[in-house]
Amino acid sequence: MVQKELAVEASRLTTEPYLASRHFFQVKEQIEKTSIFDIIRMMPKGGILHLHDSSIAPLDWVIKNLTYLPNLYTKKREGSVPREFQFSQTPLSAEEGWENVAHLRAIEKEYTCNDASIQICNKSFEEILMSELSLVTPDPYNTYKSENVIWNKFGDYFSTISGLRNSLETAEMYLLKALEDLYDDGVQYAELRDGDLFDANGTDITDDYMRLVDRVVNEFQMTHPDFLGIKFILTGSRAFSEQRMQQQVDRIIERTKKFPDLVKGFDMDAHEDVYHKIRFYLDELIRNDTSDLPFFFHAGETAWTQGADMNLVDAVLLNASRIGHGFAALKHPKVMETIREQGIVIEVQPLSNQVLGFVNDMRNHPASHFIANNDRICISSDDFALWGALPLSHDFYMAFMGLGSSKDDLRLLKQLAINSIKFSTMTQAEKIDAMHKWQWRWTVFIDEVITKYHLL
Amino acid sequence: MVQKELAVEASRLTTEPYLASRHFFQVKEQIEKTSIFDIIRMMPKGGILHLHDSSIAPLDWVIKNLTYLPNLYTKKREGSVPREFQFSQTPLSAEEGWENVAHLRAIEKEYTCNDASIQICNKSFEEILMSELSLVTPDPYNTYKSENVIWNKFGDYFSTISGLRNSLETAEMYLLKALEDLYDDGVQYAELRDGDLFDANGTDITDDYMRLVDRVVNEFQMTHPDFLGIKFILTGSRAFSEQRMQQQVDRIIERTKKFPDLVKGFDMDAHEDVYHKIRFYLDELIRNDTSDLPFFFHAGETAWTQGADMNLVDAVLLNASRIGHGFAALKHPKVMETIREQGIVIEVQPLSNQVLGFVNDMRNHPASHFIANNDRICISSDDFALWGALPLSHDFYMAFMGLGSSKDDLRLLKQLAINSIKFSTMTQAEKIDAMHKWQWRWTVFIDEVITKYHLL
Repeated sequence: MVQKELAVEASRLTTEPYLASRHFFQVKEQIEKTSIFDIIRMMPKGGILHLHDSSIAPLDWVIKNLTYLPNLYTKKREGSVPREFQFSQTPLSAEEGWENVAHLRAIEKEYTCNDASIQICNKSFEEILMSELSLVTPDPYNTYKSENVIWNKFGDYFSTISGLRNSLETAEMYLLKALEDLYDDGVQYAELRDGDLFDANGTDITDDYMRLVDRVVNEFQMTHPDFLGIKFILTGSRAFSEQRMQQQVDRIIERTKKFPDLVKGFDMDAHEDVYHKIRFYLDELIRNDTSDLPFFFHAGETAWTQGADMNLVDAVLLNASRIGHGFAALKHPKVMETIREQGIVIEVQPLSNQVLGFVNDMRNHPASHFIANNDRICISSDDFALWGALPLSHDFYMAFMGLGSSKDDLRLLKQLAINSIKFSTMTQAEKIDAMHKWQWRWTVFIDEVITKYHLL
Repeated sequence: MVQKELAVEASRLTTEPYLASRHFFQVKEQIEKTSIFDIIRMMPKGGILHLHDSSIAPLDWVIKNLTYLPNLYTKKREGSVPREFQFSQTPLSAEEGWENVAHLRAIEKEYTCNDASIQICNKSFEEILMSELSLVTPDPYNTYKSENVIWNKFGDYFSTISGLRNSLETAEMYLLKALEDLYDDGVQYAELRDGDLFDANGTDITDDYMRLVDRVVNEFQMTHPDFLGIKFILTGSRAFSEQRMQQQVDRIIERTKKFPDLVKGFDMDAHEDVYHKIRFYLDELIRNDTSDLPFFFHAGETAWTQGADMNLVDAVLLNASRIGHGFAALKHPKVMETIREQGIVIEVQPLSNQVLGFVNDMRNHPASHFIANNDRICISSDDFALWGALPLSHDFYMAFMGLGSSKDDLRLLKQLAINSIKFSTMTQAEKIDAMHKWQWRWTVFIDEVITKYHLL
């Protein structure tokens, strides 16, 4: 393993670009050809502690499955969001711009295909959908000249996907695909942010969704007994009014009581540089009945100073157990000191930070300093589906090759996997069981690597 | 001033790229249009403590002046260095590929011009020279896909320029142009790395060059009495053999004795990731007669860990007064602690680090953490001529807008100017005089800004 790392390291002396120093979109295929990536793919990585539940299935799967379901309508929109989707038993108004997706595909077939196969005909519609949903582009530096350009597109995705997975039926299909992919990628556990589900009429079906998740995960565990489960950190948006955040806190407290094994805390998300800071909601967050509500704040997901990074101060003051991103923490020596003293865990998301414009060369990611300093971190993947990554392998590759030192070896990867269990919201008993199940897979993994790479 | 900073800061909320977050080559013109840059241009910035003496005059000046001198020959070369120059009273061998530059220009005129003016005819030859010498390109991310690509071109420059300023006559022209530009840019003092001069026959004319610099600076001070002077930190290359480094240390010790007011210490340079580490030369550096030789090491100019960054450990152990770049220092908590305890100064070179591929978005430059932590730093510009920057204004802009916090104001700029005097190799008496001369210009500057921007 160390030998392989050193082999790739030779790029230091050549003019070959070092993969972990370049933008993911430009080197993904090259990364996937390396033996280090192959080994990381095989590795049992523990859990993902920071993942948003509407971006966990691959976009090509979404397009090939959810958009082929019957009774789906789509409407192109003015403004930034390119299109919305809605399932409806009764046809939606053509006057309001709604078009039946199946009909759209048939028309396109007539227009462009004549005798060619449907698959080829549909390609261009699917390509359009893909380009609308995915953040991938061959020239990211020139396509996304500022953070806001990509954040706007990022936000659009969530508006579009919500019409495709806002029923228990499609949410179940979506979740099941995600579970399969997580498991295939060596991920045994996930903590999902967001978690709310509203149907097409705006009715809150989150309770039903929680029960569904519980059932689907249980069924999945029947066939995958070493899968450890899913938990939720329910989330409000920084775009909420104070009143709406108040209601959200109420709802989440209620759900932590109703689903104590499943719902583990509260977070708030959305582009920190643009929307309200944590302090805007202080009255809503500090109440008698929030004293038992564990906080997990997105904070310091910013390259700026003296702005959104002030969320770090509030996250620490509000006793957050973990901080999402914490990208700016090093710029605040006092905050960093407190994070270290209080053992607060930073959820590091290498690819998310790169794709969303916070860092280019991974070796300059602040987490390279966290790792050098033995800080408490875990590696997550935030919204991997949007940038065409696997659930955790690409982020682990970047952590291993970009954030860790050149001399960090398998022990770094192992520690990161252990961290993901140790710093999770699982109970002590669950963690002991989880460590056993992970340890067993780790032993198998080591054997497999030794065999495959003839290391003995 | 603060208001202006906040005005530019509005880019946080728009899709306009934040200038200090983009590559200098792509935003230089926009930066130059801002009032913040205008004010930084006017500002007396103290001194530059890290500057290489063969890259301190603008390349267009070099081409328009040095390459128009008579008896200049040029030869295109195989391999990486595109061409070399040599002045010679007797014609150089055409069989060996030498061509007279004036003749080349005349031929080109015949070929391409007919009746057009010489200026236009020569343009293409000058454009070729510029593209060979300059690192500037409109699409740096795609042009320079790895650090080594740009470092090779960077190295080629020094080979090419050496043929143009290797006589006392051309070195004087070059130096005088540099002094004028430094002074115009509000720079009152410079410490030059390298300093060796060998003529076309390979004869060491460094002593003569030192005397020349002394005379030229004295003459310059007649007409610019608040110019504080030039000092040298003579430098060996990391590409040297141990034996050659031994000789270089001998030469430099000799010159510190011969020119005690001018030659202030020893450094070693060249691409750290590729050439020898400091430790390779330990025997040559630790000798009885080096105990009085002040060390100023380039160290940690790397995005890697556990490689060239080990130079940081040696620089600290060898009691370097200042460290050139120190880009990787934060990845070594113990080294950083020692740097802080011992008050070692880090020479930060924002644009150099960006152009040479160590950092993209300035807000991720490790020096943003140094500034947040009140570490002892100075801002220099390394080899500004190669990337078409002014001697210090563009680097100060990047430091102010990219490295400092959004709320850092004029006091940051003032502190950086003060640091450049305080941390220089000037004697105590010289520093007192320097502070007076800088303070006087600072007062004038504040008055000028108030008048120009109607701040009263």
